[in-house]
Amino acid sequence: MAREKLVVVGGDAAGMSAASQARRRRDEGDLEVVAFERGRATSYSACGIPYWIGGLVEHEAALISRSPEQHRANGIDVRMRTEVTAIDLDARRVAWRDLEDGREGAEGFDTLMYATGSVPMRPPVPGIDSDGVYGVQVLDDGVALRAELDSGRVRRVVVVGGGYIGLEIAEACKSRGFEVTVVDRSATPVGTFDPDIGRFIAEAVRGMDIDMVLSDGVAAIEAGPDGRVRAVTTAGGRELPADLVVLGLGVRPAVALAQQAGIPLGSSGGVAVDARMRTGAEGVWAAGDCVESVHRLSGQRTVVALGTHANKQGRVAGINIGGGYATFPGVIGTAVTKVCAYEFARTGLSMQEADDAGLRYVTAHVDSTTRAGYYPGAEPIRVKLLAELRSGRLLGAQIVGKEGAAKRIDVLATAIWNEMSVNEVLGLDLSYAPPFAPVWDPVLIAARKAFDAVEADTRG
Amino acid sequence: MAREKLVVVGGDAAGMSAASQARRRRDEGDLEVVAFERGRATSYSACGIPYWIGGLVEHEAALISRSPEQHRANGIDVRMRTEVTAIDLDARRVAWRDLEDGREGAEGFDTLMYATGSVPMRPPVPGIDSDGVYGVQVLDDGVALRAELDSGRVRRVVVVGGGYIGLEIAEACKSRGFEVTVVDRSATPVGTFDPDIGRFIAEAVRGMDIDMVLSDGVAAIEAGPDGRVRAVTTAGGRELPADLVVLGLGVRPAVALAQQAGIPLGSSGGVAVDARMRTGAEGVWAAGDCVESVHRLSGQRTVVALGTHANKQGRVAGINIGGGYATFPGVIGTAVTKVCAYEFARTGLSMQEADDAGLRYVTAHVDSTTRAGYYPGAEPIRVKLLAELRSGRLLGAQIVGKEGAAKRIDVLATAIWNEMSVNEVLGLDLSYAPPFAPVWDPVLIAARKAFDAVEADTRG
Repeated sequence: MAREKLVVVGGDAAGMSAASQARRRRDEGDLEVVAFERGRATSYSACGIPYWIGGLVEHEAALISRSPEQHRANGIDVRMRTEVTAIDLDARRVAWRDLEDGREGAEGFDTLMYATGSVPMRPPVPGIDSDGVYGVQVLDDGVALRAELDSGRVRRVVVVGGGYIGLEIAEACKSRGFEVTVVDRSATPVGTFDPDIGRFIAEAVRGMDIDMVLSDGVAAIEAGPDGRVRAVTTAGGRELPADLVVLGLGVRPAVALAQQAGIPLGSSGGVAVDARMRTGAEGVWAAGDCVESVHRLSGQRTVVALGTHANKQGRVAGINIGGGYATFPGVIGTAVTKVCAYEFARTGLSMQEADDAGLRYVTAHVDSTTRAGYYPGAEPIRVKLLAELRSGRLLGAQIVGKEGAAKRIDVLATAIWNEMSVNEVLGLDLSYAPPFAPVWDPVLIAARKAFDAVEADTRG
Repeated sequence: MAREKLVVVGGDAAGMSAASQARRRRDEGDLEVVAFERGRATSYSACGIPYWIGGLVEHEAALISRSPEQHRANGIDVRMRTEVTAIDLDARRVAWRDLEDGREGAEGFDTLMYATGSVPMRPPVPGIDSDGVYGVQVLDDGVALRAELDSGRVRRVVVVGGGYIGLEIAEACKSRGFEVTVVDRSATPVGTFDPDIGRFIAEAVRGMDIDMVLSDGVAAIEAGPDGRVRAVTTAGGRELPADLVVLGLGVRPAVALAQQAGIPLGSSGGVAVDARMRTGAEGVWAAGDCVESVHRLSGQRTVVALGTHANKQGRVAGINIGGGYATFPGVIGTAVTKVCAYEFARTGLSMQEADDAGLRYVTAHVDSTTRAGYYPGAEPIRVKLLAELRSGRLLGAQIVGKEGAAKRIDVLATAIWNEMSVNEVLGLDLSYAPPFAPVWDPVLIAARKAFDAVEADTRG
């Protein structure tokens, strides 16, 4: 039997997880694995970049979980700083260009793993291409951004977009002593949270002495005569002086290559895949930020750029490429972030998402503590739940609080995953001891309140 | 219609939760509620006693969530320091004695709520009734114990039994500067953990400079001529000098009154109840440490003395007494404790419990960190899982680690509750950001390893 060749496009979490799984399951005489990576690192934590920029993480190397050399030692032929420029599905080959020396070439494949990740959204405004405007998507972006911050010529940073990455970068810059302003078009930051929780996020950000300009979008980026950014002007007429602009508007799946090659996209704009991570093109698999996933609650296809999904999806693709069987079961929108001392987490549907899905629900809030109220270090926690009318099915949860608050979201994520009603959640045997929770864990109190609200509505 | 009278025997978590729920649902013209409590406090946190003794909690009052006066203001006739001495089901009345002035009397009832809690196990050894031997079961025990520790005549404390409460008391005494020895008959402390995890617990205890005498039981308690404890002698021939002995052997349900009255007990020795918390006697309900619960995994009836169950069961009983409908769905043995900087948690079945239930399983361990490895404050965490052969059903989980480790047990408890397989757990959409978890949460890595073990066994 001829040796099969797997070509992996993109050497971060999804691509290298797939490569590693396939490699482990098939020996080198049976499967050859070649991976192309445009950047200087493989298998790194993009989510860790803000902490490295802020100095919480000292060495860039700490973000890298497996280097090209380590992958090579495992029998994966990694081609660094080499960009795949085209995919030819009929001829079964990719075209590549070495970004260091400009050399070009082609590599044949039998099986293709498409793991190109995502690209930062860039607002279509004048001046967006000025010097000093940065995305923070790949490790090399982080390196460039950190070099700017270290250069001594930056004093004022404007972050465009108050999503997770925007706020993390804002905090990192603030912690290094820069003046920071965050601009967001919405009335509250991190739009995947309901506005009432979003207001807490805005307060937490302002509490760090970061300016937040809300309900206002970027109209233009003004550059000086040297072509370098000097201010951001907003639709509302503000002029925000800036020595550096960071784009934190979120990302979109990097699908240009797929589109050109005829690998089908889904309605959400990501590469369409089935549960085994097969695309609509024969012998082509995809995983990570570039693909769309099924949201288990809304049934919608959605693109979620998150390292944890990328790793899992890559593993699933790799197992299948390696001749095993695995599936990715979808997402429910779980996310967590930290803003100064405050933790924010969410899972399932927000009010807006539930409305969009045509679901009717009640909400319940509870303010409690992370430990027994009398135990030292008990921190405030607010839990908000959405429960479906009549059925009481848990639809969504949001948590805001301090140390120890946010990770409780995982209990609610697991409950949603299992389609539990809030009455069932209330019965859960969760751990209790005074250093860890009040005798009624905040999660349970919230479920009790949501249950009461469902009951009241059903009676009313 | 005649006014119904509810008599509650026992004024802590279960009894007063039931009283409060029933009270809230029926007005005073319809239901009269009388509650008898032997001690000096209602609705207090027995689990908080060790932290008050150790000085982490300054005021005893902080442990009381609702005082007798507060209950009275809500329309519950609370009789403090009044012990119910007999229950006559035919005559529908209880006999009581005022522990302050010795007065006796009787109170009629239509409905009875039995919530007597538990009593500490006392080893049947010579000298057990010496002065200076204490249980730590009710708040008044804690008051007495703390007074002893404050008296200046105690230097050496021996704790008999290395369960949760024993270790918590040992740490509390150590933190106040006493010499502390813990004696336990098992080879590792806290027998609900597997021995490999128990060894970590023993190490954590010894790390606090507390002596642990394991695989050795108490043979006798030696008293001096004044009738006061002076040493504990063990079956293994040790003599452990002691100015104070604390019993930490666990508890048994306080069922003496129920037995005398003919309220049926279950096979485990606790009062038998159905899911609505009805006993086998007409019009008699029970909840809390005195009742037995169904273990959802083994199907066994079991007595679990834990405030969180007492509160939930009391609520369920009270809703039903109040004319509503609620059920208690059983337990899965979730528990958590803290020993110095170490956190320990467990849920589901231990290896011994799974063996006893005739279940066959694989185990998997993972050593990881509570946050991304590169993030400051990442603490070690070990997760151990038991998964059923073939099906991969998650049967049990144990966690040991530092700050942020133990509460993850709730995710696994929720997974077990929903009868998830480890492969399904692996697919869960759990929260991820570097300050909160590695990109593969330790729970997910453990599930992946357990899944691999199930697969390997199935193939093998």
